[in-house]
Amino acid sequence: MIRVNTAPPPREQLALRRRDDSDLAGRLRRSVRGYGTRPDLAEFSAWFRERARASPFRVDRIAFEELTDWSFDPVTGNLGHRTGRFFSVEGLHVEPDGAADRSWHQPIIHQPEVGILGILAKEFDGVLHFLMQAKPEPGNPGLFQLSPTVQATRSNYSRVHRGFGVRYLEYFVHPGRGRVLVDVLQSEHGSWFYRKNNRNIVVEVFDDVPPHDDFVWLTLGQIGALLRRPNLVNMDSRSVLACLQFGDEGFEALHSDTELLSWFTAERARREVRAERVPLAALPGWERGARSIDHVDRRYFRVVAVSVQAGSREIARWTQPLIEPVGTGVTAFLARRIRGVLHLLAHARAEAGFRHTVELGPTVQCTPASYAHLPADRHPPFLDLVLSADPARIRYDAVHSEEGGRFLDAESRYLVVETAEDDLPTSLPEGYCWLTPAQLTSLARHGLYVNVQARTLLACLGTGAAEVGRT
Amino acid sequence: MIRVNTAPPPREQLALRRRDDSDLAGRLRRSVRGYGTRPDLAEFSAWFRERARASPFRVDRIAFEELTDWSFDPVTGNLGHRTGRFFSVEGLHVEPDGAADRSWHQPIIHQPEVGILGILAKEFDGVLHFLMQAKPEPGNPGLFQLSPTVQATRSNYSRVHRGFGVRYLEYFVHPGRGRVLVDVLQSEHGSWFYRKNNRNIVVEVFDDVPPHDDFVWLTLGQIGALLRRPNLVNMDSRSVLACLQFGDEGFEALHSDTELLSWFTAERARREVRAERVPLAALPGWERGARSIDHVDRRYFRVVAVSVQAGSREIARWTQPLIEPVGTGVTAFLARRIRGVLHLLAHARAEAGFRHTVELGPTVQCTPASYAHLPADRHPPFLDLVLSADPARIRYDAVHSEEGGRFLDAESRYLVVETAEDDLPTSLPEGYCWLTPAQLTSLARHGLYVNVQARTLLACLGTGAAEVGRT
Repeated sequence: MIRVNTAPPPREQLALRRRDDSDLAGRLRRSVRGYGTRPDLAEFSAWFRERARASPFRVDRIAFEELTDWSFDPVTGNLGHRTGRFFSVEGLHVEPDGAADRSWHQPIIHQPEVGILGILAKEFDGVLHFLMQAKPEPGNPGLFQLSPTVQATRSNYSRVHRGFGVRYLEYFVHPGRGRVLVDVLQSEHGSWFYRKNNRNIVVEVFDDVPPHDDFVWLTLGQIGALLRRPNLVNMDSRSVLACLQFGDEGFEALHSDTELLSWFTAERARREVRAERVPLAALPGWERGARSIDHVDRRYFRVVAVSVQAGSREIARWTQPLIEPVGTGVTAFLARRIRGVLHLLAHARAEAGFRHTVELGPTVQCTPASYAHLPADRHPPFLDLVLSADPARIRYDAVHSEEGGRFLDAESRYLVVETAEDDLPTSLPEGYCWLTPAQLTSLARHGLYVNVQARTLLACLGTGAAEVGRT
Repeated sequence: MIRVNTAPPPREQLALRRRDDSDLAGRLRRSVRGYGTRPDLAEFSAWFRERARASPFRVDRIAFEELTDWSFDPVTGNLGHRTGRFFSVEGLHVEPDGAADRSWHQPIIHQPEVGILGILAKEFDGVLHFLMQAKPEPGNPGLFQLSPTVQATRSNYSRVHRGFGVRYLEYFVHPGRGRVLVDVLQSEHGSWFYRKNNRNIVVEVFDDVPPHDDFVWLTLGQIGALLRRPNLVNMDSRSVLACLQFGDEGFEALHSDTELLSWFTAERARREVRAERVPLAALPGWERGARSIDHVDRRYFRVVAVSVQAGSREIARWTQPLIEPVGTGVTAFLARRIRGVLHLLAHARAEAGFRHTVELGPTVQCTPASYAHLPADRHPPFLDLVLSADPARIRYDAVHSEEGGRFLDAESRYLVVETAEDDLPTSLPEGYCWLTPAQLTSLARHGLYVNVQARTLLACLGTGAAEVGRT
């Protein structure tokens, strides 16, 4: 369920319950350890290959004029769907911290609807399993990835009423069918989306769930193992899993929670990013060609168009625009132990599309190619330290791509690097703070604190994909 | 301090601390009980009258053309300061939940800067006291009210560098001078402000604080007693005090915290308020006269202008616009006990100026005069129940005004009404939920959950001004 029934039950039944989910952390830990109670990874791989074979899916790049149902508005130049739904590509003018001389323009995806990213959970043999789906998206490298049980925009799921069902959606939009484990509105990429929010939900069910060939129940330990493979567990899955309240361990940290929130509040208060939507037409610094909209220096990203032929999707053929980043990203947390307790180095990042100025990102989050023309002292802090890390200190290293429904081959190398103390500078640059995974997790229960890239790494830590337990 | 020093101390000193402030709730409770360790209320009243006498302050309504430094932009008609600082009055076009037929236009205050609302705390004789200031504002009924230690916009406090000091500001902008008890960005009135955020901070200090005639140290119990008087404790003080993490009591509630957050997430996700800033010139439904901008039906509020002569303020004379509401508001929480535990009926309110669609407000928050022309079945839910409540069930009833630096005589009657179970409808309307004061308090630690009106009532509950303890 996603709507708690706020009507009190008949008076004789009114009862109190504990405010906290006291047993959840232990059950999640069991699921992380509960590797292999279901199909082993070889079986999983066979199933996954079979799903891809059973559902032909083909993507071709096309020219903008080949787009059906999508067009550039004759006045604004914005690229939108004829129904006004789904999303549109518009322009954004960004002025960071009142510095007009550092302002820029860029295309941005505007998608005001709140979508649902929902995962069903269920105990088998006393261990929580999560219902994952083999699903193709046009922008995914390899097309098929493992996505949440439900991944639907409102434009998607409002079609339910016209007879196109989104499988298992009813568990997330009708109350009383299970127990909510987490439910939070999270941001997505602030560099590419204008104030996008999706609902990240996990619902535990107790009755039988009708099976379907494209879906599989996996433990958190199994998902953790799959997170070590490249481009398999999709962004939406990573985002939702990161919101689970893993572990109540960690009552101690370098900074108390109040100090941490105070630091974050100060970071939010000192930044003043003005971002205004502007027409995409004649956007300064960007050029619209027949097949792409590019930055004049060919940096950052492109807007392109594709056509899709799908065997198993709700609609068999469609065309759509996608954002295609230029270059592979690097997304990394530096980690260190302080008196034995693992800490991560978070960065309070201002991204132009954020609804509230600043969120916590990983230590490093950038596309190195965008900095290749600059001297080393203008590289992002800690980038060179991460890229030159002793392999023995790398606790996690895998390439993942971002949402394939909006982004084409948007790959980033995700890392967790446990530093030796001697590698660290003695003082931190402004905007960086050490916190524990437990502190980051407790913030991820609320929206607009932990950005989508940090959530990917948090999912890797929570599911055991990142082996920071080894010392 | 408001900036935690994120640089780790030299390695030999790196230490862990508890994440929670385990002793704070008990110390706050002692301060609520610690009534009268400082001046008694008669002494306070004498001091307060003397402060008002010592600082002449005069406010006159003027025509817009008498404004100095403020003018209507010749193109947009927006009313702004010649420096571009402070705030501006602009237009807003609001379309709630995609319903174009229910859209409206209104003037709105645009103030992108984040201000500081800071209170200093210090123990005397083992009891926490809070440093409050007798301060006049042009829009206050009675002019002088009790405000936080520091109440400063960035435009205000950046003048520090030009020699105009804001007293005690250094405790809030320089790290290391104390211990932060709470520090959070909160919204203000979403009907009158466009995405306004202020930093609400309480800092405990351990060294001597230089005294000043306009300031007084009070316990929470004393502030609670003063909150029973009309128009004395100003909105900024109420807002900051509400963020204190009173009481860790209340581990049980009708809904678990996860259920509560899920309900709130659903409320936020189902609402889709589009609010776009538009020119104030020729705003549909509003008329600009020589002395006011009014709604054509004379409802809601007016924009007016005043001149101010101050004896004790940083600048001795100035003029400025103010928002003047039409009619007195009613702001009330319905309360009830469930198995002995007090619950409040919160309303997930969409206000046009909110940064994130919906926040939790009181059960009732409206200006009854705006509904006088409508039949009873179109009055806001629970309004008639509150206004007709048996006086024996009214736990709190006082008139307070909103921020006098922006609003003129913006009075509302604040109530807490403990209902008999028989008075309650058997089911709740959509958007309402019972929660405990402890749950509301834990949400107020984070921004964008608890609106400014609910924070006033939360301050009344936390300081004991509302006597819900009586059964």
